[in-house]
Amino acid sequence: MGKKNAFYAQSGGVTAVINASACGVIETARQYPDAMGKVFAGRNGIIGALTEDLIDTSEEPDKAIAALRHTPSGAFGSCRYKLKNPDENRGEYERLIEVFKAHNIGYFFYNGGGDSADTCLKVSQLSQSSSVPIQAIHVPKTVDNDLPVTDNCPGFGSVAKYVAVSVREASFDVRSMAKTSTKVFVLEVMGRHAGWIAAAGGLASDARTKIPIVILFPEVVFDKDRFLARVDLLVKQFGYCTVVVSEGVKNPNGTFLADQGLKDAFGHAQLGGVAPVVASVIRDNLKLKYHWGVADYLQRAARHIASKTDVEQAYAVGKAAVELALAGKNSVMPTIVRKSTRPYVWEVGAAPLEEVANVEKKMPGTYITHDGFGITDACRDYLTPLIQGEDYPPYKNGLPDYVTLKNVAVAKKLPEFKL
Amino acid sequence: MGKKNAFYAQSGGVTAVINASACGVIETARQYPDAMGKVFAGRNGIIGALTEDLIDTSEEPDKAIAALRHTPSGAFGSCRYKLKNPDENRGEYERLIEVFKAHNIGYFFYNGGGDSADTCLKVSQLSQSSSVPIQAIHVPKTVDNDLPVTDNCPGFGSVAKYVAVSVREASFDVRSMAKTSTKVFVLEVMGRHAGWIAAAGGLASDARTKIPIVILFPEVVFDKDRFLARVDLLVKQFGYCTVVVSEGVKNPNGTFLADQGLKDAFGHAQLGGVAPVVASVIRDNLKLKYHWGVADYLQRAARHIASKTDVEQAYAVGKAAVELALAGKNSVMPTIVRKSTRPYVWEVGAAPLEEVANVEKKMPGTYITHDGFGITDACRDYLTPLIQGEDYPPYKNGLPDYVTLKNVAVAKKLPEFKL
Repeated sequence: MGKKNAFYAQSGGVTAVINASACGVIETARQYPDAMGKVFAGRNGIIGALTEDLIDTSEEPDKAIAALRHTPSGAFGSCRYKLKNPDENRGEYERLIEVFKAHNIGYFFYNGGGDSADTCLKVSQLSQSSSVPIQAIHVPKTVDNDLPVTDNCPGFGSVAKYVAVSVREASFDVRSMAKTSTKVFVLEVMGRHAGWIAAAGGLASDARTKIPIVILFPEVVFDKDRFLARVDLLVKQFGYCTVVVSEGVKNPNGTFLADQGLKDAFGHAQLGGVAPVVASVIRDNLKLKYHWGVADYLQRAARHIASKTDVEQAYAVGKAAVELALAGKNSVMPTIVRKSTRPYVWEVGAAPLEEVANVEKKMPGTYITHDGFGITDACRDYLTPLIQGEDYPPYKNGLPDYVTLKNVAVAKKLPEFKL
Repeated sequence: MGKKNAFYAQSGGVTAVINASACGVIETARQYPDAMGKVFAGRNGIIGALTEDLIDTSEEPDKAIAALRHTPSGAFGSCRYKLKNPDENRGEYERLIEVFKAHNIGYFFYNGGGDSADTCLKVSQLSQSSSVPIQAIHVPKTVDNDLPVTDNCPGFGSVAKYVAVSVREASFDVRSMAKTSTKVFVLEVMGRHAGWIAAAGGLASDARTKIPIVILFPEVVFDKDRFLARVDLLVKQFGYCTVVVSEGVKNPNGTFLADQGLKDAFGHAQLGGVAPVVASVIRDNLKLKYHWGVADYLQRAARHIASKTDVEQAYAVGKAAVELALAGKNSVMPTIVRKSTRPYVWEVGAAPLEEVANVEKKMPGTYITHDGFGITDACRDYLTPLIQGEDYPPYKNGLPDYVTLKNVAVAKKLPEFKL
């Protein structure tokens, strides 16, 4: 029985540290040349597997692979493509297994969130009933921090750090300007279903550096009057305040606050964000000067201010995925296990994919203060370790020296497959 | 003749490094205790002088003053308050001189942009005809980079670095997603009159790291068809592209592109930014998936990724201001003089305020490519040295350890003054 090659793919929205997981997978595989063959990456995620568009990572020198650890985004391309249920489209799964067979692939490492955990589980189940057994290991990644079992998700800690740092900096700015100018700064952050990222904004204020912050969570229905009263009070008390608003905040009628049906002067629909809506509410009702920002991709791509803890964990789950595979495990996901909060001690565990797939971890109700606008000490205790440490990328000519791989294609062996 | 005290104030929009200039002023003044008395800071800029709301910086320990070097924003508060012409409101200037006299102030250090240089000049002129001679020194600061004589303005280099780094990171993100999702990322940056900050976005792409970037400068009238053709071409060629748009971009009819007269479903006016407008244009005409961000205050407050060159220059102009004052100079501004670009060599010079006040430095036409969407090599040569080097702040518990001063008030001696 010859050694098997491995397949690795990135799925869904990328993060500042998903490449650190790729680095962990590839560097670890390279440490076991007798047990594991080449690592083939899917170009643009699972689409690369379906279309047999594989990248031969063995063409990359060690130095380039090492540089993945400090490079944000998905080095092989990601995709938003959810495989259907095997009952609905068994062909896709059969094609995957066919491609894996053609390229002697025995390990499937899928780096993504909840959807990809589900895909990973199905690939594992189907392969077991085929002549091509595949060990499927899910590598956790999501800025949304919504995977179950694992204490936290690689990718989240760095967004959390970016948001906490940015909120502190912008708040200092507003504080300086408040006497004659801007009194409220509104920052929109990601999080359509869960307020984890918005919650991180609350870390900007602590015992040494008090900042008046109002957080609008997607978990809490927007109550305009109570919100305005809170902002008004803080501005009267501190002279200014900062609002961190999650993109997913909803009106009492269940619609997104961002969805205002905006039309320009000619009646054309315009894109809005939720930050300008919140700023408009403040202007119209409190007549306060405001500024607003929308961090969007900047927050999840900000490798320059990544959390060292997050980088280490992202690498560790990639490394563990290969080690689990070599230990004969299948249908599992490496997890982050918190052993202690003070001091923060963590280790890598493993969870069966049955427990991970299709389960969304919500932010506990005990993490939001009773007034709905802040984070509790329990939330602070949970979040604080995740943003610890800096792990600066190298710089060249004033800019981060991020790697772009060669991404050499593996020769195709199969007929074309239509997506 | 006893030694005189000094007055220092921060004016206009704050930056990541204006406090480094404050640090330069105060630390240098402390080195000459026999020649210069206390440094009093204006609380909220010049308003602090008019209302006799002075801060006694001698109450701050050396360590707190040193920490200003790595703390963004205006530590004493800034303001947007332009003194009128002495012909229109001589009372304000007389009040300033009265306050300076009451507190034995002989040095006026004003840290700001073009407007404050003008105020500084007028204070100097008026004081010379009064019984209270004041040496007025302007300390340059502006993210807009529009002061004349000086090669560049402290504050700009750090915004430039933030924008260049962020554009590189977000572009890597879009590149990863482009196969099935986002193909264009639009980032709105500051710059109402000049495209200096937008130009810095162009640095994200260089010989080693090619990124397709379209820049929309306020200097170039928005031409929708040419813009769409350019985006379309780049997306076809590279699979994705990034648009950096200056807030000041204008329509052919002279109105701001951002000003679309947006109304919500109920007909209420809504705040817009220019990024969502540009994204709408792309969506409606090219049917491409997009994301957009608005950096707003994040860009000018981002001390965590400040340019080391900028920090050093900000400190140096503060230091030079005190040295110029002690050398008996009046009505001058320390400048940054570029001695050489490769290698970058700079020194501090001095310019008479007559040459600085009311002159706005535009971006040279030779810095924008013929098609109007990019930066030339000349622009690159100018900008690149300004983003060199990192100067990370210290971190505590995962967050930058920025200082908040005690800001102890000086006892008032004069009757109240109504603004």
